[in-house]
Amino acid sequence: MSQFATTPKPPYYAVVFTSTRKDGDWGYTHTSAQMEELARQVPGYLGIESARGEDGFGITVSYWSSEAAIAEWKMQMEHRAAQARGRREWYSHYEIRVARVERAYGGPARPVG
Amino acid sequence: MSQFATTPKPPYYAVVFTSTRKDGDWGYTHTSAQMEELARQVPGYLGIESARGEDGFGITVSYWSSEAAIAEWKMQMEHRAAQARGRREWYSHYEIRVARVERAYGGPARPVG
Repeated sequence: MSQFATTPKPPYYAVVFTSTRKDGDWGYTHTSAQMEELARQVPGYLGIESARGEDGFGITVSYWSSEAAIAEWKMQMEHRAAQARGRREWYSHYEIRVARVERAYGGPARPVG
Repeated sequence: MSQFATTPKPPYYAVVFTSTRKDGDWGYTHTSAQMEELARQVPGYLGIESARGEDGFGITVSYWSSEAAIAEWKMQMEHRAAQARGRREWYSHYEIRVARVERAYGGPARPVG
């Protein structure tokens, strides 16, 4: 599966989540996969892209059709529980930026698969 | 130095660059550092955040005060040469999304340094 999100023509919304992880997994990998699964079920979810370097600094960008979809996901019950664990157990720091995508283009060729 | 960009109160702009690298360095690391140095000199540059996993998928987000600043950086001569090399030599695929950051918040604590 491609790691690139397949997003529609702008405008749509992006949530840029940058974070540094604490040492140790402590259920992070499991919950992370679970949250991605749950996010997919929220109406207005468009896709997600994620990268984390060996130094522990990571960027996850999730894409949404509207601010309302983002608000719904933010308030989703299991997600709220995961947010609390994230603040307490997994992240030494994070920043969240909500942005409206206005233009998008790609190159050189579409990846297959 | 913190890997988090220190950005002002929104609104400002974000360029989300997601990419997959081809094998081998081919001058990528050197040019990459050089471009970051040049970008800093563009009026309206606010900061940059970057992560690439071992699988070669990476996300770089650069922050700008305005669309005009982004346009100036896009047209900068050395940057244009690097873009051409990127398309030809370094990236198997990339996506660029230009977005207007509307809200931002962080947690749990500011990293030191």
